[in-house]
Amino acid sequence: MLEVEVYVSLKKTVSDPQGLAVKRSLESLGYSEVKEVRVGKFIQLRLDLEDREKASQRIEEMCKKLLANPIIEDFTFKIK
Amino acid sequence: MLEVEVYVSLKKTVSDPQGLAVKRSLESLGYSEVKEVRVGKFIQLRLDLEDREKASQRIEEMCKKLLANPIIEDFTFKIK
Repeated sequence: MLEVEVYVSLKKTVSDPQGLAVKRSLESLGYSEVKEVRVGKFIQLRLDLEDREKASQRIEEMCKKLLANPIIEDFTFKIK
Repeated sequence: MLEVEVYVSLKKTVSDPQGLAVKRSLESLGYSEVKEVRVGKFIQLRLDLEDREKASQRIEEMCKKLLANPIIEDFTFKIK
Protein backbone atom coordinates (compact mmCIF):
# COMPACT_ATOMS: atom_id res chain seq x y z
CA MET A 1 0.00 0.00 0.00
CA LEU A 2 1.40 3.39 -0.99
CA GLU A 3 0.46 6.71 0.54
CA VAL A 4 0.48 9.63 -1.85
CA GLU A 5 0.08 13.37 -1.36
CA VAL A 6 -1.02 15.48 -4.31
CA TYR A 7 -0.69 19.27 -4.24
CA VAL A 8 -2.83 21.21 -6.71
CA SER A 9 -2.41 24.97 -7.09
CA LEU A 10 -3.74 27.56 -9.48
CA LYS A 11 -1.25 28.66 -12.12
CA LYS A 12 0.49 31.94 -11.28
CA THR A 13 -1.30 33.68 -14.14
CA VAL A 14 -4.77 32.71 -12.91
CA SER A 15 -6.49 35.02 -10.45
CA ASP A 16 -7.48 33.50 -7.13
CA PRO A 17 -10.48 35.23 -5.53
CA GLN A 18 -10.56 32.73 -2.66
CA GLY A 19 -6.92 33.45 -1.87
CA LEU A 20 -7.61 37.18 -1.98
CA ALA A 21 -10.53 36.80 0.43
CA VAL A 22 -8.34 34.81 2.83
CA LYS A 23 -5.58 37.46 2.57
CA ARG A 24 -8.05 40.21 3.44
CA SER A 25 -9.44 38.23 6.37
CA LEU A 26 -5.92 37.67 7.70
CA GLU A 27 -5.16 41.38 7.33
CA SER A 28 -8.31 42.27 9.23
CA LEU A 29 -7.16 39.94 12.02
CA GLY A 30 -3.90 41.94 12.21
CA TYR A 31 -1.63 39.78 10.04
CA SER A 32 -0.35 42.64 7.91
CA GLU A 33 2.78 40.63 7.01
CA VAL A 34 0.71 38.47 4.65
CA LYS A 35 1.51 39.62 1.12
CA GLU A 36 -0.06 36.86 -0.95
CA VAL A 37 -2.33 33.89 -0.43
CA ARG A 38 -3.13 31.16 -2.94
CA VAL A 39 -5.58 28.41 -2.09
CA GLY A 40 -5.31 25.02 -3.72
CA LYS A 41 -6.08 21.39 -2.98
CA PHE A 42 -4.22 18.87 -0.85
CA ILE A 43 -5.29 15.35 -1.81
CA GLN A 44 -4.21 12.26 0.10
CA LEU A 45 -4.51 8.90 -1.62
CA ARG A 46 -3.91 5.32 -0.55
CA LEU A 47 -3.09 3.06 -3.45
CA ASP A 48 -3.01 -0.71 -3.48
CA LEU A 49 0.24 -0.81 -5.43
CA GLU A 50 3.82 -1.66 -4.51
CA ASP A 51 5.61 -0.54 -7.67
CA ARG A 52 6.50 3.12 -7.08
CA GLU A 53 7.33 3.78 -10.73
CA LYS A 54 4.01 2.40 -11.93
CA ALA A 55 2.25 4.35 -9.16
CA SER A 56 3.97 7.52 -10.30
CA GLN A 57 2.67 7.04 -13.87
CA ARG A 58 -0.85 6.27 -12.66
CA ILE A 59 -0.96 9.29 -10.33
CA GLU A 60 0.29 11.56 -13.11
CA GLU A 61 -2.62 10.30 -15.24
CA MET A 62 -5.17 10.72 -12.43
CA CYS A 63 -4.02 14.30 -11.94
CA LYS A 64 -4.31 15.13 -15.62
CA LYS A 65 -7.71 13.46 -16.01
CA LEU A 66 -9.48 14.30 -12.78
CA LEU A 67 -7.60 15.68 -9.79
CA ALA A 68 -6.33 18.86 -11.45
CA ASN A 69 -7.48 21.00 -14.33
CA PRO A 70 -4.31 21.33 -16.44
CA ILE A 71 -5.65 24.46 -18.15
CA ILE A 72 -5.59 26.53 -14.98
CA GLU A 73 -3.84 24.39 -12.37
CA ASP A 74 -0.41 22.96 -11.68
CA PHE A 75 0.13 19.82 -9.66
CA THR A 76 2.92 17.98 -7.92
CA PHE A 77 2.81 14.82 -5.86
CA LYS A 78 4.88 12.85 -3.40
CA ILE A 79 4.81 9.10 -2.84
CA LYS A 80 5.60 8.52 0.81
CA MET B 1 10.11 37.44 2.38
CA LEU B 2 9.22 33.91 3.45
CA GLU B 3 7.26 31.39 1.41
CA VAL B 4 5.04 29.09 3.40
CA GLU B 5 2.97 26.05 2.48
CA VAL B 6 0.08 25.04 4.73
CA TYR B 7 -1.55 21.62 4.43
CA VAL B 8 -5.03 21.27 5.91
CA SER B 9 -6.72 17.88 6.06
CA LEU B 10 -9.86 16.54 7.67
CA LYS B 11 -9.24 14.56 10.85
CA LYS B 12 -9.25 10.80 10.34
CA THR B 13 -12.48 10.46 12.32
CA VAL B 14 -14.38 12.96 10.13
CA SER B 15 -16.13 11.63 7.07
CA ASP B 16 -15.10 13.15 3.75
CA PRO B 17 -17.89 13.03 1.13
CA GLN B 18 -15.77 14.97 -1.38
CA GLY B 19 -12.97 12.42 -1.04
CA LEU B 20 -15.46 9.59 -1.47
CA ALA B 21 -16.83 11.18 -4.64
CA VAL B 22 -13.31 11.54 -6.04
CA LYS B 23 -12.53 7.92 -5.16
CA ARG B 24 -15.65 6.75 -7.00
CA SER B 25 -14.81 8.87 -10.02
CA LEU B 26 -11.29 7.45 -10.10
CA GLU B 27 -12.68 3.92 -9.86
CA SER B 28 -15.06 4.59 -12.73
CA LEU B 29 -12.06 5.74 -14.79
CA GLY B 30 -10.41 2.36 -14.12
CA TYR B 31 -8.17 3.24 -11.17
CA SER B 32 -9.28 0.34 -9.00
CA GLU B 33 -6.03 0.56 -6.99
CA VAL B 34 -7.34 3.67 -5.22
CA LYS B 35 -8.43 2.58 -1.74
CA GLU B 36 -8.93 5.93 -0.03
CA VAL B 37 -9.07 9.59 -1.01
CA ARG B 38 -9.11 12.54 1.38
CA VAL B 39 -9.41 16.06 0.04
CA GLY B 40 -7.99 19.00 1.97
CA LYS B 41 -6.53 22.43 1.34
CA PHE B 42 -3.11 23.47 0.13
CA ILE B 43 -2.50 27.10 1.02
CA GLN B 44 0.55 29.03 -0.17
CA LEU B 45 1.46 32.23 1.67
CA ARG B 46 4.11 34.88 1.15
CA LEU B 47 4.98 36.67 4.38
CA ASP B 48 6.96 39.88 4.76
CA LEU B 49 9.01 38.49 7.65
CA GLU B 50 12.59 37.32 7.99
CA ASP B 51 12.47 35.75 11.44
CA ARG B 52 11.49 32.12 10.85
CA GLU B 53 10.68 31.43 14.49
CA LYS B 54 8.33 34.42 14.69
CA ALA B 55 6.81 33.39 11.36
CA SER B 56 6.21 29.89 12.68
CA GLN B 57 4.30 31.26 15.69
CA ARG B 58 2.25 33.60 13.51
CA ILE B 59 1.36 30.87 10.99
CA GLU B 60 0.32 28.53 13.80
CA GLU B 61 -2.03 31.28 15.02
CA MET B 62 -3.40 31.95 11.52
CA CYS B 63 -4.14 28.26 11.10
CA LYS B 64 -5.97 28.01 14.40
CA LYS B 65 -7.95 31.20 13.85
CA LEU B 66 -8.79 31.10 10.17
CA LEU B 67 -7.03 28.70 7.82
CA ALA B 68 -8.16 25.48 9.48
CA ASN B 69 -11.07 24.48 11.67
CA PRO B 70 -9.35 22.77 14.61
CA ILE B 71 -12.54 20.92 15.54
CA ILE B 72 -12.56 18.83 12.38
CA GLU B 73 -9.25 19.56 10.64
CA ASP B 74 -5.55 18.99 11.21
CA PHE B 75 -2.88 21.23 9.74
CA THR B 76 0.83 21.23 9.16
CA PHE B 77 3.00 23.82 7.46
CA LYS B 78 6.44 24.23 5.98
CA ILE B 79 8.46 27.45 5.78
CA LYS B 80 10.56 27.22 2.63
